[in-house]
Amino acid sequence: MKKISRIGLSIVLAISFLLAAFPFAGAAEAAAPKYVFMFIGDGQGSPQISATQYYLGTLQNPDAVIPTPAQLSFTRFPALGIMTTYDATSFNPDSASTATSMASGHKTLSGVINYDTELANPFPIITEYAKAAGKKVGVISSVSLDHATPAAYYAKAPSRGDYYGIATQAFTTGLVDFIGGGRFVMPTGESGDQTDIYEIAQENGFTIAEGSEAVRALNADSGRVLAMVDDPDNAMAMQYEIDRVRRNAEGADSLPLSEMVAAGIRVLDNENGFFMMAEGGKVDWSGHANDGMTSMYETIAFSDAVQVAVDFAEEHPEETLIIVTGDHETGGLSIGFAATAYDTHFDYLQNQTISFEDFDEIIARHREAQDGFEATLADIERYYGLTATVDRPLTLTAAELEALETAYTLSMVAEENRVIGETETLAYGGYEPLSMAICHILNNKSGIAYTSYAHTGLQIPVYALGVGAENFVGSYDNTDIFHKTMQVMQLR
Amino acid sequence: MKKISRIGLSIVLAISFLLAAFPFAGAAEAAAPKYVFMFIGDGQGSPQISATQYYLGTLQNPDAVIPTPAQLSFTRFPALGIMTTYDATSFNPDSASTATSMASGHKTLSGVINYDTELANPFPIITEYAKAAGKKVGVISSVSLDHATPAAYYAKAPSRGDYYGIATQAFTTGLVDFIGGGRFVMPTGESGDQTDIYEIAQENGFTIAEGSEAVRALNADSGRVLAMVDDPDNAMAMQYEIDRVRRNAEGADSLPLSEMVAAGIRVLDNENGFFMMAEGGKVDWSGHANDGMTSMYETIAFSDAVQVAVDFAEEHPEETLIIVTGDHETGGLSIGFAATAYDTHFDYLQNQTISFEDFDEIIARHREAQDGFEATLADIERYYGLTATVDRPLTLTAAELEALETAYTLSMVAEENRVIGETETLAYGGYEPLSMAICHILNNKSGIAYTSYAHTGLQIPVYALGVGAENFVGSYDNTDIFHKTMQVMQLR
Repeated sequence: MKKISRIGLSIVLAISFLLAAFPFAGAAEAAAPKYVFMFIGDGQGSPQISATQYYLGTLQNPDAVIPTPAQLSFTRFPALGIMTTYDATSFNPDSASTATSMASGHKTLSGVINYDTELANPFPIITEYAKAAGKKVGVISSVSLDHATPAAYYAKAPSRGDYYGIATQAFTTGLVDFIGGGRFVMPTGESGDQTDIYEIAQENGFTIAEGSEAVRALNADSGRVLAMVDDPDNAMAMQYEIDRVRRNAEGADSLPLSEMVAAGIRVLDNENGFFMMAEGGKVDWSGHANDGMTSMYETIAFSDAVQVAVDFAEEHPEETLIIVTGDHETGGLSIGFAATAYDTHFDYLQNQTISFEDFDEIIARHREAQDGFEATLADIERYYGLTATVDRPLTLTAAELEALETAYTLSMVAEENRVIGETETLAYGGYEPLSMAICHILNNKSGIAYTSYAHTGLQIPVYALGVGAENFVGSYDNTDIFHKTMQVMQLR
Repeated sequence: MKKISRIGLSIVLAISFLLAAFPFAGAAEAAAPKYVFMFIGDGQGSPQISATQYYLGTLQNPDAVIPTPAQLSFTRFPALGIMTTYDATSFNPDSASTATSMASGHKTLSGVINYDTELANPFPIITEYAKAAGKKVGVISSVSLDHATPAAYYAKAPSRGDYYGIATQAFTTGLVDFIGGGRFVMPTGESGDQTDIYEIAQENGFTIAEGSEAVRALNADSGRVLAMVDDPDNAMAMQYEIDRVRRNAEGADSLPLSEMVAAGIRVLDNENGFFMMAEGGKVDWSGHANDGMTSMYETIAFSDAVQVAVDFAEEHPEETLIIVTGDHETGGLSIGFAATAYDTHFDYLQNQTISFEDFDEIIARHREAQDGFEATLADIERYYGLTATVDRPLTLTAAELEALETAYTLSMVAEENRVIGETETLAYGGYEPLSMAICHILNNKSGIAYTSYAHTGLQIPVYALGVGAENFVGSYDNTDIFHKTMQVMQLR
């Protein structure tokens, strides 16, 4: 001990202090992470995360004197940042421009994938740098694989609407080693006359794994992989988690996002490591539709998917970086409504067991049958708990019942014959009127509310764990996600 | 160089990496900060901060191709955290319990100042520990000095409504060296028969500085100080910043929150340092009233006040810690509205030059005069820019004009004669109907919206700069603010 000089002691003390004050795994090493996970909750801001924590906390602690939020897999990550998400079009950006910013480090217009604002020059992207450094590349999404967020991690297109052109790049550029989740919305192009995208995948050496069993069987020997879940809705996206849970309880066997991430890890793991982007895409879709409970299920599925990476990081503690963020908030969700004021009733939400989208089909059947409001009300009670029966927690008030009937009347008109004015647009945002009326009533009774059917300008939290996580602390812009990741990965 | 051992080199590299990765001022020293600033924006969450950044950015860059947010004094602080704010009553807590959590480290019921949930045992608080360690203590608020947030930093009371009992403790416990901002709401007690609080202040050796000139003259020789601004509204709070700016432009000389902080620093600075809590209290008040522009002015005034501490920290870089946070979000503000969708028009807001509270007085004059809707509409145009004239950016739509007339009709009825049903409660939240209708219309045209007139459950960002700032990184609870501050200050 006596041989340690004062300077040496100071150095040791300084290190001890820094490590104690900021105990990131691997922070003391200058090594780049071998494995990098980039999780993006589309439309998932702080309100969605907090609401889910409160919902789960309420269910898990029904007798708690002090209300207790649950922790999600990432809400206690040691590093936290907050980022601006505006794009070159608006403070309320879209998923194409925001994913471009995170993948390339550049701002661009809404609707553009990895091209500049002149739509002239494509940007190099993080996965290309990772690939050049010898890593395998994985892209996962719970929505269709040609959707804006996954697209930005493997494709370049002046318009996000060029679904076929985007999809083609997944298989022809040599960049992607694993792509999985939903399917492709235009597998044979806009006019249906192009080479089938699944044929292109096979021609380029991709193994196609279709359905839960095939995805579960994927492993390190599977080669390049296109993995797709069952698609009972034929919607080219993974099911809403709330519907998946209900259908699996009824005997189906559809896998969740977390199993897709696990399959991706099995396929991608190799001595040079990998970069995986995984998107929870339907937080956004349910946010657009102001469907609070469905949105929270999506955040839970997203959290479960991140947990797979956390488990992996525990097995590879000095080699893994996990970044968890969103691209923008959707819907303007608040945990607080004018009528409920300081009260919340998150327990009410558990009565909902269906997404707005699946309930739209039930409404369509009632429209077909024209079997009257009472018959529809019975389904509303079955799937949402809302009831005309008095003295129940979810008894509809006279005003709520009237709002339901108004929406019901419009929903019973064939879509092409509906008269939609300013009032209806504000009330239903272009969705099935009755589904929206139900969602708003259940949301508001539970103490949550939305202000918009679009994306909002709320800044978005960034959670990081593992090697280099400390770089993601503080306030910055979404373009900095690219720069920080490049720096930590020592890619330039 | 050759003499440096491999281990020594590793240590040096590790330090270099850590300092490069995490360049907090003073992070390498184990010394406690001599000066600690705790800034609380009451009701100020991420939406309020972001909206203000976008508003200022829009004004500062009118021709920008890419919309550019402005930075506030604290939005680029190196350390960022996010905290839960629920209390023992609700996920949507009040200012008494949340300030108690930050001041004492304990959860309690809404409405309680530094007492446990049994209302039996008082908690020791951060300012007491700081005082015991020889530091001076300052408490500043833009609202009345007996309000919940300032109260929690010097008083203990089972009910926040015990204004006189709370106020008394400001002067009789020996804890406070500087208290400044607004005044006291019950200076002679609830029944008006107690010893005047200003007399108690003087008896206990406090210098009373009243008005801008007196506050500006305060210095290190002033002793213990009670500082109060002019009170043209007789509301016992500092004016809304938007009104202060308008009145000062018309010749008044009322000082802003930043000058109160500067005066506090002059009074408190001493060789043992100080702990100062400064609250921007009217972000909350304007949030309750859904008055977006007034709220952003309050956040600007708050940011200016923090800037005074930042300037001080630059003069004392190894000795200062600044923590900036909020107690809860108020109003459920979103940057996005159903009708404006992806568009925002923050420039519209600059037409507003008055707070809802000052405009309420104008409405009262019209009610007195009964001079008709047109006369009131002229004042609406004068103070908000909203107009019935066609083809202006802020031309009222037919629906908006109708909403204004409905609210006007109710506002013209004497308050005691108004019939307020569920619709009116949701539309106006108990405020002057016409003021609320105006605020909602201007908000929504500008692309912002509120969901509530109460506090919400949104988690709140924490920004930190200076000695020990790295301790405030990550996700935690508001009670951890106490524990982290105690740890950094080495108070136990």
